[in-house]
Amino acid sequence: MRQTFEEQADPSFGREHLPLIRAAMARDGLDGFLVPHEDEHQNEYLPEANDRLAWATGFTGSAGAAVILKDKAAVFVDGRYTLQVRAQVDGGLFEVRDLIDGGVSAYLEDALEPGQIVGYDPRLHSPDSLDRLKAAAERAGANLKASPVNPLDQAWGEARPGQPQAPVVPHPLDYSGEESVLKRSRIGDAIMAEDADAALITAPASIAWLFNIRGGDVIRSPLPLGQAILRKDGTARLFLDPAKVTADLPAWLGNEVALERPEALEAALRDLKGERVLVDPSLSSAWYFDALEKAGAQVVRAPDPTALPRARKNEVEVQGARTAHARDAVALVRFLHWLGTEAQSSLPDEVEITRRLEGFREETGALKDLSFDTIAGAAANGAIVHYRPTHTTNRRTEQGCLLLVDSGAQYLDGTTDVTRTVAIGEPSAEMRERFTLVLKGNLALGRVRFPPGTTGSSVDVLARAPLWARGLDFDHGTGHGVGSYLGVHEGPQRISKAPNSVALQPGMIVSNEPGYYKTGAYGIRIENLQVVTPLTDIEGGERPMLGFETLTLAPIDRRLIVVDMLDAEERAQLDAYHARVLASVGPRVEAPVRAWLEQATAPL
Amino acid sequence: MRQTFEEQADPSFGREHLPLIRAAMARDGLDGFLVPHEDEHQNEYLPEANDRLAWATGFTGSAGAAVILKDKAAVFVDGRYTLQVRAQVDGGLFEVRDLIDGGVSAYLEDALEPGQIVGYDPRLHSPDSLDRLKAAAERAGANLKASPVNPLDQAWGEARPGQPQAPVVPHPLDYSGEESVLKRSRIGDAIMAEDADAALITAPASIAWLFNIRGGDVIRSPLPLGQAILRKDGTARLFLDPAKVTADLPAWLGNEVALERPEALEAALRDLKGERVLVDPSLSSAWYFDALEKAGAQVVRAPDPTALPRARKNEVEVQGARTAHARDAVALVRFLHWLGTEAQSSLPDEVEITRRLEGFREETGALKDLSFDTIAGAAANGAIVHYRPTHTTNRRTEQGCLLLVDSGAQYLDGTTDVTRTVAIGEPSAEMRERFTLVLKGNLALGRVRFPPGTTGSSVDVLARAPLWARGLDFDHGTGHGVGSYLGVHEGPQRISKAPNSVALQPGMIVSNEPGYYKTGAYGIRIENLQVVTPLTDIEGGERPMLGFETLTLAPIDRRLIVVDMLDAEERAQLDAYHARVLASVGPRVEAPVRAWLEQATAPL
Repeated sequence: MRQTFEEQADPSFGREHLPLIRAAMARDGLDGFLVPHEDEHQNEYLPEANDRLAWATGFTGSAGAAVILKDKAAVFVDGRYTLQVRAQVDGGLFEVRDLIDGGVSAYLEDALEPGQIVGYDPRLHSPDSLDRLKAAAERAGANLKASPVNPLDQAWGEARPGQPQAPVVPHPLDYSGEESVLKRSRIGDAIMAEDADAALITAPASIAWLFNIRGGDVIRSPLPLGQAILRKDGTARLFLDPAKVTADLPAWLGNEVALERPEALEAALRDLKGERVLVDPSLSSAWYFDALEKAGAQVVRAPDPTALPRARKNEVEVQGARTAHARDAVALVRFLHWLGTEAQSSLPDEVEITRRLEGFREETGALKDLSFDTIAGAAANGAIVHYRPTHTTNRRTEQGCLLLVDSGAQYLDGTTDVTRTVAIGEPSAEMRERFTLVLKGNLALGRVRFPPGTTGSSVDVLARAPLWARGLDFDHGTGHGVGSYLGVHEGPQRISKAPNSVALQPGMIVSNEPGYYKTGAYGIRIENLQVVTPLTDIEGGERPMLGFETLTLAPIDRRLIVVDMLDAEERAQLDAYHARVLASVGPRVEAPVRAWLEQATAPL
Repeated sequence: MRQTFEEQADPSFGREHLPLIRAAMARDGLDGFLVPHEDEHQNEYLPEANDRLAWATGFTGSAGAAVILKDKAAVFVDGRYTLQVRAQVDGGLFEVRDLIDGGVSAYLEDALEPGQIVGYDPRLHSPDSLDRLKAAAERAGANLKASPVNPLDQAWGEARPGQPQAPVVPHPLDYSGEESVLKRSRIGDAIMAEDADAALITAPASIAWLFNIRGGDVIRSPLPLGQAILRKDGTARLFLDPAKVTADLPAWLGNEVALERPEALEAALRDLKGERVLVDPSLSSAWYFDALEKAGAQVVRAPDPTALPRARKNEVEVQGARTAHARDAVALVRFLHWLGTEAQSSLPDEVEITRRLEGFREETGALKDLSFDTIAGAAANGAIVHYRPTHTTNRRTEQGCLLLVDSGAQYLDGTTDVTRTVAIGEPSAEMRERFTLVLKGNLALGRVRFPPGTTGSSVDVLARAPLWARGLDFDHGTGHGVGSYLGVHEGPQRISKAPNSVALQPGMIVSNEPGYYKTGAYGIRIENLQVVTPLTDIEGGERPMLGFETLTLAPIDRRLIVVDMLDAEERAQLDAYHARVLASVGPRVEAPVRAWLEQATAPL
């Protein structure tokens, strides 16, 4: 099994490690130290060696921070993690504060005393976030100071796992669709357009995309950790641990890419003296900015030039996504068939459900990894948005409960991410009503046509309006970008209430995942991935429009739909979708599954 | 009649005045001069004496600019005015450029030569806009220079009309709902919260609201032109031309408001030496910032502190709006009755239609002014978004045409703004289909419920999605704020594709006006004003929601609706609205009109 069900951390982490960190702080003359969730690569999912926040506090969420002072400490989490943090972190040692409302800045302003010095590791903070923290500390009369050596790492010492060294391999043209030399030339032009000589690229997904390589340094995503300097002429220096370099790699990278050891990076930055170097202040840490400025380079602060081209998948990548989703659909349909038949009476627990789903995906023979740990939440566990079943939390399904399963796979040709909510036994009228409201939002966001320039912020309301009309809502974003055999969360586009200025463009893949959560009772989410389609004329219309093609192919549980709440357009849309699912998956599954699927996808 | 039908300007304006302006520029040693549309008060609608752009170029739109150089000139308009500008401005003298795409900045960068000096009147430009223009001129190696005396005003000379001197009168508590002393105390607290000692307020609508006064210096809106300094203790100095001060005014303003001559303002700003003074850099001109800085005051750049409180109407203002709309509805229904009966065969022209509507509004006995010049556009004229009928453009209605009428009134208790589109004779299938799409958008935006924090940008798509689905769209905002017996266009909230961070809050009045325009053929717009309702629980829901109450009461032309295109919810919504119209207006109109109204508002 790829997924495990152990608790990864608990309050003992903070109890044991906090004194060690404070001792290291004292040796360095610090009154405090900042512990962000992000690592040297600003990763969302971290190698164990870089999960400093978990080691220091016990908290393992995908976003957060801690501040450790001499005599007190605080951990910061967002609304998704308020339950989890109480289970994982010792409330006597760490005050729990909101990451968004006030956040670390407000705490520094409140808690610091004049003259105090708080250390930070400049390799872990982006300049954008650091500027806000520095200003807050100064308002309290205190100061932040870069620590040349991280006191937490010192405290961790020998016990700290080694840096990951997963092999880095070529990602063939059949999947990437564009040779690296062409990508580098395009991005080189973009660097020139910013009036820069070179770009420093540190985001692992950008490195993977630019050089058509994949690694495995970060669990659940094939990311190679490294850095690159790309010059405006398209040549590059790529810094990777030699232990990760596979035999084919140098030839694959070609003459224009110099493969170098990580230790050579600092000298390479010094070589940029007098040049204009583009760096993304939201993705690259302050250490790079300091090093470039010290070297006498001129830093051009601009978005990572690979971010938008990477988000706009080319035709080969879109076709790969279709193939990957059709393959994943076979596993999903077998899984849903099992849930809809045998499991209705065997009432499996979440761990078994998770294992079954992983098993069906393994049977495809193409599974490289899960794209994230499966969330299988039965009954009240389904209402915990970032739930992951463990042996401690594991819950058995029961008659009349809802089961929410959010899962995804990494295949060479694409990354999937899908949520289905399934009734075990007879669902209540309330469950069905709310499921149908969520479905109406999902359908509205699935069928919208829109002109160029439209952002994800503009269309978010379509997924929420049916819930709002009944006095309901959900407290997470409606959609995130997804990579092509890369991260399952990828910007810069997203669909959410928060303002976002990135227009939805052809080839971008986004999730469509409205939900409803009743704390202590059940959770509902319906999630499809969909790709933005090219600008096409509409019969009888005047202006060509963009739109979405749904990639995910898996039936929606009919037992949870109140058909009378759907209008004719919605019914036709769902029937057409179910017909697509049957046509794609039907011929690829065994007879009993196909018979079940025919019923599950029959017109409403 | 209040509205006139003469052409207000034509290409002869530019031909006659451009040489005079260039001569004045030469006397001042300038290579160019900037002519914004805005005046000293950053007004949208201008007193004739301040419409410098029209005098210089002939262009009379509500937004725009010109740049006059020694040997060339350009006029800048947005997409709404591309047809109008060609009729009003001599294309041989002025290059026509897009105000939004590139705008004045791009022109300055292209057209200026190194060393050139371009003058501007610092009383006419906000610092926000000026900063961009200065940077553009500098990129061309040229410089902008403040002109102590405006060369255009010198060129205009004796021919320039005098500044308006309309009487300024008290606006009673029955309409304003909150005493000025309380408003000043509230805003004083807001000034303190910004850590300032005083605020300089120059927006006429803010002055009118803060002191509960109304004037008439600007056509179509009861604005008093003046300035005020409000201290954090709630006391104020108000600068108004003594010729405008009516007998009751000093007592109405009370002891805490010193009424002073405009000439005293400069010295009053000098009195602020050493103090922190809040000024809005988007509403107050650069001249005020320069004067305050010269005086040794510390300028705090922040939004006008009256803008949000003014936008959130209190219960008395909301009730006033309801009363004003019910009164206006009587005039509208009489007008629509005439259009739906007699006019169907008499086929009146746009001028007669405009006069009739004004006549019905006069009959209410309460009309203070129109809130803007009525747009009555028959057939192809309806497709010109900012059309105003003149004797030159006047067009007779014809069988099978559409008539778009956008109009509004100023009453003491409220400002109205309404658009109805009416069929003359038998409309085509295409007209009906497109009208129904516009209606679906209007209904969706009318019925939406939403949580606190939702902005107008978030809900805009609701009004557009039905059009987008058919490959159609409209090129204007969906909704603007409206004042309470004040400006018919009022921020800071608005409903549009463009990002806007101001949340919709209870008491805010916004328009809901999707449209469709077929150039050379016809225009469709349906516009209601609606007020944001208080947070209320929804039966069976968990979270209280905001919503809208439609203020406008006038039937939607049933002959233009394709009933099959509406779902059950939309039909019920329109039927309920029509029932409200009948219940409110029916008892207040004569029998033949009532009989027609019963038919016009019968359930679909």
